[in-house]
Amino acid sequence: MHDVHSYIDANLSRFKEELLEFLRIPSVSARSEYRADVRRAAEWLAERMRDAGLEVSIEETPGHPVVLGEWRGAGPDAPTILIYGHYDVQPPEPLELWTSPPFEPTIRDGRLYARGSVDDKGQLYLHVKALEAHLKTTGRLPVNVVILAEGEEEVGSEHLMPFVEAHAKRLAADAVVISDTTMVGPGIPTIGTSLRGLAYFEIHVEGPSTDLHSGSYGGAVINPATALSKIIASFHDENWHVTIPGFYDAVNIPESFREQIARVPFDEAGFLADTGAAELVGEKGFSTLERIWTRPTVEVNGMLSGYTGEGAKTVLPSKAMAKVSCRLVPDQDPEVIKGLMKAHVERVAPAGARVEVVYLHGGLPWRAEIEGPLYTAAARALQRAFGKEPVYAGEGGSIPIVPSLERVLQAPVLLMGFGLPGENAHAPDEWMSIENFEKGTHASAALLDELRNFGK
Amino acid sequence: MHDVHSYIDANLSRFKEELLEFLRIPSVSARSEYRADVRRAAEWLAERMRDAGLEVSIEETPGHPVVLGEWRGAGPDAPTILIYGHYDVQPPEPLELWTSPPFEPTIRDGRLYARGSVDDKGQLYLHVKALEAHLKTTGRLPVNVVILAEGEEEVGSEHLMPFVEAHAKRLAADAVVISDTTMVGPGIPTIGTSLRGLAYFEIHVEGPSTDLHSGSYGGAVINPATALSKIIASFHDENWHVTIPGFYDAVNIPESFREQIARVPFDEAGFLADTGAAELVGEKGFSTLERIWTRPTVEVNGMLSGYTGEGAKTVLPSKAMAKVSCRLVPDQDPEVIKGLMKAHVERVAPAGARVEVVYLHGGLPWRAEIEGPLYTAAARALQRAFGKEPVYAGEGGSIPIVPSLERVLQAPVLLMGFGLPGENAHAPDEWMSIENFEKGTHASAALLDELRNFGK
Repeated sequence: MHDVHSYIDANLSRFKEELLEFLRIPSVSARSEYRADVRRAAEWLAERMRDAGLEVSIEETPGHPVVLGEWRGAGPDAPTILIYGHYDVQPPEPLELWTSPPFEPTIRDGRLYARGSVDDKGQLYLHVKALEAHLKTTGRLPVNVVILAEGEEEVGSEHLMPFVEAHAKRLAADAVVISDTTMVGPGIPTIGTSLRGLAYFEIHVEGPSTDLHSGSYGGAVINPATALSKIIASFHDENWHVTIPGFYDAVNIPESFREQIARVPFDEAGFLADTGAAELVGEKGFSTLERIWTRPTVEVNGMLSGYTGEGAKTVLPSKAMAKVSCRLVPDQDPEVIKGLMKAHVERVAPAGARVEVVYLHGGLPWRAEIEGPLYTAAARALQRAFGKEPVYAGEGGSIPIVPSLERVLQAPVLLMGFGLPGENAHAPDEWMSIENFEKGTHASAALLDELRNFGK
Repeated sequence: MHDVHSYIDANLSRFKEELLEFLRIPSVSARSEYRADVRRAAEWLAERMRDAGLEVSIEETPGHPVVLGEWRGAGPDAPTILIYGHYDVQPPEPLELWTSPPFEPTIRDGRLYARGSVDDKGQLYLHVKALEAHLKTTGRLPVNVVILAEGEEEVGSEHLMPFVEAHAKRLAADAVVISDTTMVGPGIPTIGTSLRGLAYFEIHVEGPSTDLHSGSYGGAVINPATALSKIIASFHDENWHVTIPGFYDAVNIPESFREQIARVPFDEAGFLADTGAAELVGEKGFSTLERIWTRPTVEVNGMLSGYTGEGAKTVLPSKAMAKVSCRLVPDQDPEVIKGLMKAHVERVAPAGARVEVVYLHGGLPWRAEIEGPLYTAAARALQRAFGKEPVYAGEGGSIPIVPSLERVLQAPVLLMGFGLPGENAHAPDEWMSIENFEKGTHASAALLDELRNFGK
């Protein structure tokens, strides 16, 4: 193992250069104009995985392709580890708020700034480099490995699970490793124990069939922007408790999780500073980490109506639109939430407003079983890479395929993430810590070693 | 007078061609990129007023220029009539909803479609043509005339009244005539008896300093789009009564006006059809015309936050913005409403939301004194042009300079408009009736004749 880690140290600057190349490809899965770039990112990644010594194939789906890398040389009796990541990224807008352009990766103060740096190209690529380190120094891996890299994580992974189900035998694994989450602070290795689910909607409100003069018609015709505001305002009471009937019915968080959260070292002042908000505000009766890790939310992600340009336009808009998403916690189900949301919006919509609730996609919430050899191996690997025992933390974000992979592959999932608070995933100036890219590579290489006898 | 009206009939098709030229100039006053076009419209208009036989000057202001046309040949003992209009237009967006492009005027089914056709280029230009008809046939006008055409009506006429005040002596008049309003229906000549005032605001809400990941932060940080929705939702109760404290305190509408309204021939089904809305909705306890003519409103004109492109982006926006305007009725004062709005928004803004209310501009409401020779002359002129007695109607829109002109010039204002219901002023597919352009030209020519002995 000494050689493996020496190889990583000796080649780190090349690893970083390669990652910059990866980040220059604007693989925005949500927008059709980037379709060719998404494909280019898949092909680039496939080529690098081949260079590392894997057998690689680009697998077509009805959407963006899956990149599959395999090494089966440990033999049928050795454990098989499936590493999942995604090579697609969020849209970069608003562009004007980036200090350096989103697809011109730039290093400043030990941080690599680019769209997709931490979510998830950097965290996926460090595994590729850990495999390369093993294969180039020892000619083999301690376990069989499958890398499953998808291109649709940021748009709901619609085609991934059908692909996994269709190839369940080929993808069979004893454990799944995913690096797409955040450490609780710099230098504090972290194992993720929960994810929130998601239910994403667009709400459309129509009033008049065309924009009207707000003087000639105002007061006699429904204003769809006002109607939409009333709908959105109806989602929360004054304590930021969600008021959609039935919303909390399935929430099932053990009291022990609250106690576990209380033990997590959490820099609340630093968290507030990262947001740049005036204060932290949320549901009454819960701490900040409880709000993010254990409570479901209803958030407006975007809102548009009428005239939004320079100056004054006295128009009564014909329509208004909001993108609204719910983060879910165990055991909420997005399919159930979809029904509750539609019923609620239709009930509270003012008379005269024509409303439509469109469900875009969703994913189940998840909670880990942290007892057992997978999590023991992960704790030892992180200790080796960071010189410190990991902490166990929830995660406010969603990786909808985690519960799905666990169900279909019947294998436990490990969330070993190398992001950091304030990393701006999904926002302008997204960055990844260079140090974490390096230590993450070491941790990934160590994990393969620790899993040598896993499941046997 | 026979010659004057014959001249109009004989030259009508040229008048229309000229109007098309006028409409091709995109004189959008709200947007700086159209600055040169606004100037070009002023110069074009000045040239046509010179052709008609007026003395013309383009008067600079700190904003867009004023075009002044004068004819003083009736002598110091004859009355002077000031005709006011505006050559600027509303922004054309949303462009995709126009059947033909906004600045490529197109005639369909007797309607002239173009941005600015009815608001106000067509209604301003018909006066220029009426003056031309008098001057080319008789060599003179029955009265002294000043045309005052401004280029900032759609952005609040900020520089007009300082100009009028600075040139009050030169602009002194016995009456002011304005055609920038709507007839109650086709073939029903209409005299406007009231205007609503305006107070236009932008409301800005800030939460985090940058867009955040809605999973990693959602639930612990204020969502400015949700906060803005709660603010907007707080403007009305369930009966669409405005709930801003003090909002109705100055409302002063005589009961007799309600009776007058009840006598106006109003095609409510046609009005609903023009809006394309599912039903007419407004403040409980008032009829549709009462809502538009006698009740103040709070309308959202535009709203923007977060991600509004294709697909799903799970972002917690850093800011949200709404354009919100109040229509006012006598004796509400926009300066007072400004204070009430700011106090209300600050009071209802959720904790953690940083709000700013920016007042863009405003104008006073107005009610006419319809007894007296000016209105008698107008009634006779409209009868001559349309073959029918006019009706007296309120107007839901605002012409902020009407009460200001009345105050500074100490002269009564006449609103003699030739728009029609459903004309889409401020909206896509704005149009003006060709028949009304023609009859309006005759009415203007007749009005000058009827005012021959006005005020003497």
